Amino acid sequence: MATPQETDLPSRAGPIQLKTPKGTLDWFGPDAQLRKHIFQTLSRVFEAHGGQELDTPVFELRDILSGKYGEDSKLIYDLEDQGGELCSLRYDLTVPFARWLAMNSNVAHVSRYHIAKVYRRDQPSIARGRYREFYQCDFDIAGEYEPMIPDAEILLIIAEAFEALHIDITIKLNHRRILDGIFAVAGVSDKMIRPISSAVDKLDKMPWDEVKKEMVEQKGLTEDVADQIGTFVRNSGDMHKLLNFLDSNPRLMENDDIKSGVDDITLLLSYLEAYNVTDKVLFDLSLARGLDYYTGLIFEVVTVIPDSKGGSTGKSQEVQVGSIAAGGRYDNLVGMYGKRNIPCVGISFGVDRIYTILDARRPKKKGGSHPGPDIDVYIMSVGDKGEGLLLERMAVLGQLTKAGVRTAFMRKANPKLLPQLKVARKVPINVILDPDELAAGNVRLKVSSGQEGDVEGKGDDRGEKNLGKLVSKVDLVAEVKRLLQ
Amino acid sequence: MATPQETDLPSRAGPIQLKTPKGTLDWFGPDAQLRKHIFQTLSRVFEAHGGQELDTPVFELRDILSGKYGEDSKLIYDLEDQGGELCSLRYDLTVPFARWLAMNSNVAHVSRYHIAKVYRRDQPSIARGRYREFYQCDFDIAGEYEPMIPDAEILLIIAEAFEALHIDITIKLNHRRILDGIFAVAGVSDKMIRPISSAVDKLDKMPWDEVKKEMVEQKGLTEDVADQIGTFVRNSGDMHKLLNFLDSNPRLMENDDIKSGVDDITLLLSYLEAYNVTDKVLFDLSLARGLDYYTGLIFEVVTVIPDSKGGSTGKSQEVQVGSIAAGGRYDNLVGMYGKRNIPCVGISFGVDRIYTILDARRPKKKGGSHPGPDIDVYIMSVGDKGEGLLLERMAVLGQLTKAGVRTAFMRKANPKLLPQLKVARKVPINVILDPDELAAGNVRLKVSSGQEGDVEGKGDDRGEKNLGKLVSKVDLVAEVKRLLQ
Repeated sequence: MATPQETDLPSRAGPIQLKTPKGTLDWFGPDAQLRKHIFQTLSRVFEAHGGQELDTPVFELRDILSGKYGEDSKLIYDLEDQGGELCSLRYDLTVPFARWLAMNSNVAHVSRYHIAKVYRRDQPSIARGRYREFYQCDFDIAGEYEPMIPDAEILLIIAEAFEALHIDITIKLNHRRILDGIFAVAGVSDKMIRPISSAVDKLDKMPWDEVKKEMVEQKGLTEDVADQIGTFVRNSGDMHKLLNFLDSNPRLMENDDIKSGVDDITLLLSYLEAYNVTDKVLFDLSLARGLDYYTGLIFEVVTVIPDSKGGSTGKSQEVQVGSIAAGGRYDNLVGMYGKRNIPCVGISFGVDRIYTILDARRPKKKGGSHPGPDIDVYIMSVGDKGEGLLLERMAVLGQLTKAGVRTAFMRKANPKLLPQLKVARKVPINVILDPDELAAGNVRLKVSSGQEGDVEGKGDDRGEKNLGKLVSKVDLVAEVKRLLQ
Repeated sequence: MATPQETDLPSRAGPIQLKTPKGTLDWFGPDAQLRKHIFQTLSRVFEAHGGQELDTPVFELRDILSGKYGEDSKLIYDLEDQGGELCSLRYDLTVPFARWLAMNSNVAHVSRYHIAKVYRRDQPSIARGRYREFYQCDFDIAGEYEPMIPDAEILLIIAEAFEALHIDITIKLNHRRILDGIFAVAGVSDKMIRPISSAVDKLDKMPWDEVKKEMVEQKGLTEDVADQIGTFVRNSGDMHKLLNFLDSNPRLMENDDIKSGVDDITLLLSYLEAYNVTDKVLFDLSLARGLDYYTGLIFEVVTVIPDSKGGSTGKSQEVQVGSIAAGGRYDNLVGMYGKRNIPCVGISFGVDRIYTILDARRPKKKGGSHPGPDIDVYIMSVGDKGEGLLLERMAVLGQLTKAGVRTAFMRKANPKLLPQLKVARKVPINVILDPDELAAGNVRLKVSSGQEGDVEGKGDDRGEKNLGKLVSKVDLVAEVKRLLQ
């Protein structure tokens, strides 16, 4: 069972620090509901595409995580060695998925989604939506398929997900082999490609001059090589335009990686046209994505069209919001476990940033008091002699809650009328119990908020000033359900 | 964003142990869906009773947990000290709730629910459904209320929850003050009450002789005191019967604790009668519950009526399944944080055991291969010349998934007919694309499983052997949605 055995509590633990750990939050009521709305919306989109849910343990054997995150490994939370296996909290949902795929070799093709918390001992920044414990929502397609068919479906899923969330987006995409090919053509050595790639990735947050400076002064490129890179990667636009730019540049097209990437993107474009989502896509040659395990298409979702690259106009809106989803193709990660390989492409939704956007649209909460729960029906007692009718209210509540109707009453034996009315006004439907009417097997049903007068304007209580419609207790549930439809 | 920055992967991590940590499991596909069904069913019941969701971090400051679990503290998972605060994984959901209540002093009354994983470094037993990482589903009512009103509502929630899950239950209940009073009357000293209580709690798993032996030989009671306890606690039955037993025993009723507990149970009985759930309740004087923080009503839910106590007939069914939910009133836990106090009563559902019961009812899975996802529509291409119609299938898929319909096709440019048919037969609705018909703006819609012939038997394709009904592409989504209703 869920609860522990044999405890002996000290009578008092004394004053201790009452807070959640640094970089973590409690989520309550309407906030938790909004987040659940995001999860449910994304799940529905995932399931429309054949997504099956996977849930993995919050901690993994430490060896599973090691060697997957490079420098960022220092941000992994380790569990204390209390005897037994060494474990760490998961850092993302991709590595646990890869571990699961490596373990389950009977799975040849799968579309899996995973909605769960991940953990990073990063410097938290509540303002920027960066926490140490936060949710990820991942959807990945694993298996051997013909080129770009699953990749295009992932981009369709992104478009559908944000349409369902009512968020306008741009999907910036690039191809690792094109990017790496450009570096090679410009004269970057193989071992410098990843460091230079990560410098270029900053072009959405920094002006070109600073990025160039980093490449030359910190990473040792010559001015000439840096400038060549700049000429190539500071190009973004619709896919047709960028494919033309690449195609018309023989020096680039001679590179096998670039040629192969261009073939992929050309195929992808035809699929995205069939899916009717090209208007949401921006081909951005500066997009690099941090993770090394990407091998093909990479993409990042922003809520506004980014500033043109290389400008020094300061922070754009995008810089503040950051990307709200990101992903790409990683064909070799599962193979790292040495058991078998399976190519994958996937997307990770940044729930906390999506939450921040949707939260800003909500009517502002009043400070100080927590809003109450969502309730559909409030049961109150009225009577000349102040009869509380607790048992009768309980019986009616049980009828309604058993039918799934969200119902409440005042948890008192003899509540006064005014405090009951005060709550009742905020609840859409009121059920009013009067001793005499109850004796005849009836209750009153009244639609409260804004709708003065009787239920649907055709009640039998004209002249009784808004006391609602008389309903037999036997019919109450059906009547309430009809009103709630 | 969700993914890490600046990594450098080693080219190969080498062979490592591919498994989840001891006592933890991956949950995939239909298994994850069944568990989600449990969560959603419970959430709906909780929300019908005004429940608001709370989510807390998976780890807490270590001080928050310390002194709450007595001996079982050794089962707590600690995070490694990597600099900064010392933290531990949560052990249950009650202590985080108490911490949240202590922190949020503006909350005077709340019904909160929490569905989340908890962590215990216990010896795992998969057969008995005991894991190191497992889900709890808690619902608690916090706040000052008139006696037994929230307690009765918790029992109503239990009845409604298991009715919604189609599990027959018995709620065994007892009152801490009655139990402690009985020990006092029998002659147990104050400091021995908890140890004796925990011995008595084993009466559902052990015959009376063994429990008595433990009390006499290990805990030092005299035979006489032990026998007196036996006379009292080996009583269980409906609430009327047990209240009569207590009421008719002046020696017991002279004890203030017992008197007060009997008043509570008498009041509770009237409320449970109003809620019409007395048939599910068994008053069991041997029920003790392990946790020390309970102060009043305690209860435990089993799926079968337990063996009569004190028998030595060996293991009953109940012993194997164990309790599937448990809880009680804890009026002083929040006060332990020294900030303020607030009385609470709540229930914790053991999701893994509920899962085990529901899983046993499912049709057995075929070994070896994972079942596919739930899909409503399968799009296939047919054509005399083997036209793949990939772009056209994509366009139709996008139409349907955008409308939330679970849809799939074969992810190939030119799939053969037979493999498509093999999948299509398992999917309720097939959309068939033929080059000529498509040129005229039409597709075929066919209900597959079991229903041979055209859609609803009034299609326009008689004589074309089960190729379905011709539908304009423009009307497809509406037609499919109509079929799925």
